[in-house]
Parts: sequence; structure tokens; C-alpha cells
Amino acid sequence: MTEPAPVFASGVDNERLNAQLRFLLEVDKLKRILRRGLLVDGSRRENAAEHSWHLALSARTFAEYAPEGTDIDRVVEMLVLHDIVEIDAGDTFLFDQVDPGPQADRERAAADRIFALLPADQAERARELWEEFEACATVEARFAHAIDHLSPMLANWHNEGGTWVRFGTTRAQVMEKVKLIQEGSEALGSYATALVDDADRRGYFHD
Amino acid sequence: MTEPAPVFASGVDNERLNAQLRFLLEVDKLKRILRRGLLVDGSRRENAAEHSWHLALSARTFAEYAPEGTDIDRVVEMLVLHDIVEIDAGDTFLFDQVDPGPQADRERAAADRIFALLPADQAERARELWEEFEACATVEARFAHAIDHLSPMLANWHNEGGTWVRFGTTRAQVMEKVKLIQEGSEALGSYATALVDDADRRGYFHD
Repeated sequence: MTEPAPVFASGVDNERLNAQLRFLLEVDKLKRILRRGLLVDGSRRENAAEHSWHLALSARTFAEYAPEGTDIDRVVEMLVLHDIVEIDAGDTFLFDQVDPGPQADRERAAADRIFALLPADQAERARELWEEFEACATVEARFAHAIDHLSPMLANWHNEGGTWVRFGTTRAQVMEKVKLIQEGSEALGSYATALVDDADRRGYFHD
Repeated sequence: MTEPAPVFASGVDNERLNAQLRFLLEVDKLKRILRRGLLVDGSRRENAAEHSWHLALSARTFAEYAPEGTDIDRVVEMLVLHDIVEIDAGDTFLFDQVDPGPQADRERAAADRIFALLPADQAERARELWEEFEACATVEARFAHAIDHLSPMLANWHNEGGTWVRFGTTRAQVMEKVKLIQEGSEALGSYATALVDDADRRGYFHD
């Protein structure tokens, strides 16, 4: 456990501030979690922290394509938090044929450990947001998933097929993700469909 | 200029969506902008995109230490955007003795170019938020600066003095930054003061 610097701040609950510091120091590790996909310029693999930053900015930029009444601040909060469990559980590649059960258990255990570093009230809120993202049952969670699924498609299109080519992904597999984008945002779903059609013409998918 | 994938989405303004995509592809370059400071675990230098992610999470976690009435969603939006100008202007080290004039000109030119990739209404909002951050005249901007200045102090404390030791920073120089933290948040200012006192006892500062 990384220890925060000592606190002697007057006028605050030191134990509470220390808990917040411990959480923020711990989640710094997300910068070391590498995803399969590359940066848009293809120069190296993307890490989960910088990925989360780009998603937060994408959600805000694409806000008008969310269903009316979507709380974009909540979507951003969700996206900033959603990958933290990967610090313990690791990144799961979108098209891995792994049994999702054990991975879900690992992510749940990670959420138990990491969010619990926060003071109880903040731990509860972070946990709720993460559960909401996972359950994908609100407009905010569905829009967050749409943004999360569109991002690697853009990067792959700009890297001559990227992970699609490298890992032999089929069009049908990608279209399952397009369906999830469509559920979060009609406009972004249509765009993703056009992108996949174009990628298909370019021969980026495995037969 | 990176070209976005073609858009054939029905029901949306393709030119508008293309502008948004161009912006999001362009700002991906922030992941390549290296800062002087290291990750908390000391393993490598931090980049400006993952740094911005950590600040967004820190602002939310420390929200209770902002002055009453501070709009934390706006602070987060500001922090997500604030470093984008570094794509053209580069990172300025906190204690560089450079003439701030030319750097400010470079950052302004970067804002002119990069935010203008967005549709006009969104470009204007992004520009306003960045100007607000730079001017540091609202509670939101001051709190955002407090978060931005506290972050490298934490990393340095955890890296046996980090950039303070490496670049021969004095206590007086760091105390100037503590003053800026204090202006954004009394509680975080007190914490930063305690941290600097402790770092001083450990001999992390140049005489």
C-alpha cells in the first residue's frame, strides 16, 4: 500500500483526507495498464488512464448525440472511473473468447478493494457509478458504453485495420459492438455502421 | 491533418460530426506530450493526457475542499481541456526560468488552431473554458489550479524528491505554488504546506 504524505492540516478530518490521498495514489497505477489497441498515430499501445481521458472528452464532444435528457456530467464521471478495476483485473480484450465469469469476479474483487480505499460515502458513490456502467441499464451507462466502443473503431480505422487485422476479427464480431453503440446513440451507431462498411471494403476484417 | 473516417450517418449534420471527429483525432496527440515529472511509482515520465485524467478524478475526490458553491463539473471540464494547447506549445516545466511571453503566445496560437477544429459553438465554449482556466479569476479556475499544482507535489514526495531533487528546486519556489493551492482551497493549501515541511526535513530542496 502506497502511503500518502503525512497530513497535519488543521480544519479537516485528517483520516478522511488520508483515505482520499491513498485512493488517488493507488489509481495512478491505471497509467501502467496497457490496452491492446494503439494510439491513433500507431506509435505505441494505449494505456487505460489516457484512454479514459479521451473518452471523457469524447462524451462531452458528442453530447448532442445522446438521448434527450442524458446527464453528460454523470457519463463523464462514469467514464473517468470505469476502468479503475483493471488495476487488479487487467484489461480484457474486446473479442477475447474468455469465460466472462472469472473476469467479472476479478473486476468485482478489484472494485471491492480499490473503491473501499475512499471514505465510505465516496466509496459507495464510486461503486454505484461503476455498477451502473456495468449493468448498462440507464441512458447514461448506455451512452458511456457507446463512447467506449466507438473509440477503438476510430483508432483501428486510422491504423489500417489495427487490432482487427492483427487479431483476425470478423465483421460480425465488430457489428455486435456497433449494436451496443446504436443502443447508446442512434447517430453514433449510424456512423459506426458506415465506418465498418468502409473498413470492410478496405479488407480490414477476417472472413 | 488526420482525416476522420467517412460519415454517411443519416439524421446528423455530417460536416458537424466530421469536425468533432477531426478534433478528437487531433487531441489524441496529447498522449505523446511528456511532462517532466514521473508516475507515482517512479517508473517513467507522465504524459499530459493521463495527467489530465488523474486531475479530473482528483478534483471530484477533493470536491469538499473547494469553496462552497464551486461547480465541480465545470472544474472537471476545464481540467480535461486545459493541457490540450501543449500539443503545439509543449509542456512548460513549473520552475523553468523562461520568458513567459513567447510561451503564452505559443499556447494562444495552439488554442486558435486546435479548438477551431470543433464546430463553432463548441470551439467557443472550449476556448472560453481554457481562457477561464488561464485567467484564474473564478473559484472554479482557482480550484482547478490548486488540483494541478498539488499533483506533482504528491508525486515528488513519493519519488524521494523527484523533480525537486533532479532540478535543484528551492523551498521558496515550491512555496509559491503552495500559495496558489491555498488560493483555490484552504484545506488543500494546509495539506500542501505540511507536505512541503516534511519534504524539507527530508532534504528534498535545494538551499
